[in-house]
Amino acid sequence: MRPQEIIRKKRDGDVLSRDEIEFFVNGVARDELADYQTSALLMAIFLNGMNADEQFALTEAMLKSGTRLNFSDINAPKADKHSTGGVGDKTSLVIAPLAAAAGLVVPMISGRGLGHTGGTLDKLESIPGYKVGLTLEEFRSVLERVGFAMMGQTSDIAPADRKLYALRDATSTVEAIPLIVASIMSKKLAAGLDALVLDVKTGSGAFMRERSRARELASELVKTGNAFGVKTQALITDMNQPLGHTVGNSLEVLECIKILRGESSARAMPVQELSVELTARMVQQAGLESSIEVARTRVNGLLRSGHALELFRKNVEAQGGDPRICDEPEKLLDLTAKAVRIESSSNGFVTSIDTFAIGNAVAALGGGRVRIDDAIDPAVGYAVEAGLGDELKQGDVLGFIYCRDNVSPEEVIAQVRAAYTISDVPPSNVPELIKEVIEA
Amino acid sequence: MRPQEIIRKKRDGDVLSRDEIEFFVNGVARDELADYQTSALLMAIFLNGMNADEQFALTEAMLKSGTRLNFSDINAPKADKHSTGGVGDKTSLVIAPLAAAAGLVVPMISGRGLGHTGGTLDKLESIPGYKVGLTLEEFRSVLERVGFAMMGQTSDIAPADRKLYALRDATSTVEAIPLIVASIMSKKLAAGLDALVLDVKTGSGAFMRERSRARELASELVKTGNAFGVKTQALITDMNQPLGHTVGNSLEVLECIKILRGESSARAMPVQELSVELTARMVQQAGLESSIEVARTRVNGLLRSGHALELFRKNVEAQGGDPRICDEPEKLLDLTAKAVRIESSSNGFVTSIDTFAIGNAVAALGGGRVRIDDAIDPAVGYAVEAGLGDELKQGDVLGFIYCRDNVSPEEVIAQVRAAYTISDVPPSNVPELIKEVIEA
Repeated sequence: MRPQEIIRKKRDGDVLSRDEIEFFVNGVARDELADYQTSALLMAIFLNGMNADEQFALTEAMLKSGTRLNFSDINAPKADKHSTGGVGDKTSLVIAPLAAAAGLVVPMISGRGLGHTGGTLDKLESIPGYKVGLTLEEFRSVLERVGFAMMGQTSDIAPADRKLYALRDATSTVEAIPLIVASIMSKKLAAGLDALVLDVKTGSGAFMRERSRARELASELVKTGNAFGVKTQALITDMNQPLGHTVGNSLEVLECIKILRGESSARAMPVQELSVELTARMVQQAGLESSIEVARTRVNGLLRSGHALELFRKNVEAQGGDPRICDEPEKLLDLTAKAVRIESSSNGFVTSIDTFAIGNAVAALGGGRVRIDDAIDPAVGYAVEAGLGDELKQGDVLGFIYCRDNVSPEEVIAQVRAAYTISDVPPSNVPELIKEVIEA
Repeated sequence: MRPQEIIRKKRDGDVLSRDEIEFFVNGVARDELADYQTSALLMAIFLNGMNADEQFALTEAMLKSGTRLNFSDINAPKADKHSTGGVGDKTSLVIAPLAAAAGLVVPMISGRGLGHTGGTLDKLESIPGYKVGLTLEEFRSVLERVGFAMMGQTSDIAPADRKLYALRDATSTVEAIPLIVASIMSKKLAAGLDALVLDVKTGSGAFMRERSRARELASELVKTGNAFGVKTQALITDMNQPLGHTVGNSLEVLECIKILRGESSARAMPVQELSVELTARMVQQAGLESSIEVARTRVNGLLRSGHALELFRKNVEAQGGDPRICDEPEKLLDLTAKAVRIESSSNGFVTSIDTFAIGNAVAALGGGRVRIDDAIDPAVGYAVEAGLGDELKQGDVLGFIYCRDNVSPEEVIAQVRAAYTISDVPPSNVPELIKEVIEA
């Protein structure tokens, strides 16, 4: 099989066979294909797409390129959640203990933040001592003892994906739906799940800004998951403003622990609401409850009872962190950055928030990564005080930047202020948090 | 400027600026751009095309990436011909002396054969002693003394083109019209021409099999040449059967010398006819004659008078070859391969010839290159005896394979025989040699 022939077929809009797709993925995984051939094929896939059979074959080949975890000996349904990424999106820290409390086993393999989006691993590492670099044996052991475990992608799970992602990033072929689907699903499927719920973000802080593209992606993800025998559902949720109260690693962990303690602020309620909904859907998809209403009630009860908080505590301890974080989060988290108040420069209503710009502002403060090897400062971030639809007077607070003394915050203040559109008339509607459910 | 942004723009079908195109071409020429980024952009150009401004900027940037020759001190119009390549296409060897005889200066920079097509340099090298690897000084000196000189591409003319071509070949992005146009024209424009005539082949042995694609390419070549101030015209000519009598290096040189000696066989007449037409158009484009009819008459006269043969002899001598080739070609050329007769296996009319297959058969015998570093055997080849429309009886000759004793010719015989379609009914028409003139 010649790589040129495979490239030519996709270039001409033809359908690739299973064998051709496997040849390509294995060539990437084993470093047998030249990068320039891979990137030409990626661009042809970007522009000419893939049909359902090709999507399945691509996902399967990437999955088979590496290790697959097997937790079938753990006698409980395995379930997970995956989010396409956003600003202030911290639900994993609430969902994992909540789902475990409901009787699910949650082997959660997460990523780091890049660009304007945060990452679960970075948030967890703001807990003193917390270790995300587990071996597979440690991961299994935490999973068995606690019901959920959190770790980073290992080099032997879907190795083709890591190489493809680096090339896609360098060649502007990231946003291709078949490539996104195969990337997400090959990693999720490697964890041996029974059920999967996807949180596909749309809006100004999402990769899929347009609702129609988010729907297309959600639908392909759901189709692919179910084709592999994993009960899969997706929610399309709002990312036209940061999710919840805060953006930044320590701040977001604090926000989550407060939710788990039943002390959620009004600004953090969307995080709680979305976490409960996603967990309830995991519970239902995994077959623990047949109705979503009952599942929702049960999950809300597990949050109120403190059961989820106890599992979070056990997980922190099992993964080397300081469990007192659950009791005295403000004392143990690094919250030493200086708060700078940002005020509205006019009267009016918040009609839009450039959430992408807010995410980038936090990354620029050191709370995220501009480049893949940047270090993270857990203390910096942004607390949102004015949300979409809010009425403000000049001088009212928009939010607080948390920054270090050695940073002069003027540029970031200007960036954050420019992200808000303040208009004389209120917005016709405030976007719903949960917009749509995509089912098989 | 980030390569990703340029790739993204072309991916999304936007128009690249002159600066962006220059950044890309210089990045390639200076090895500053990663091959995988270049190939992603090549695929995006393949699929989304380029407009006239982009085509001009790409050609100009490739031209400027290297040395430009300047023969403005030679007091005669500079003109050249370029063919898109075919099987048995040997007109350069007739055109160059003929055009020089008409008073043009012809700085002909040619290529080698690859795949099913032959190359002028390989043909010239079957003349004992003939040297195509001239220095620029030698090239200029031959040009001044003889009126035409023949050499290979040097590494400092359009260096971006060589790197791009290697990548295009490996990534199935060869057949993109904007890339073909920039590749051909950047090299031709580097020779400092006043006039250029293009021979764009179409049919079963051409890169552009379809007439419509050949027309599109011809039109873009003509537009680009004229945009650079070079009087440019194109002919679309037939490649549904090998051009003339023979395919193979020594055989083709013999065929050309016979034409120059006024001894052309009937089978070779299309070579003579096309050479005269292309030369006449060079003469007219360069302004030596205002009417094509008068130019044609003049060029025919120069062939009959033996003037072109004398210049060919001078060129061979000036480039290190044995000038007696003009007097005793059969004695001096390597024609030592064994002739094997191929017969028709049925009665009927020749309705099609897979010319691509014939070209590949000759390459497989050693007369061409399957890989870029293959050595060439000048003696092997194929002599066409039955052409399109000919009526044959079973056992009549289709042609003769010229092969070495150590090759068992069965496979090649089968390949050549399979290339001919013999039908009960004659073809509705035999393709015209010269199909169309594309003018500015």
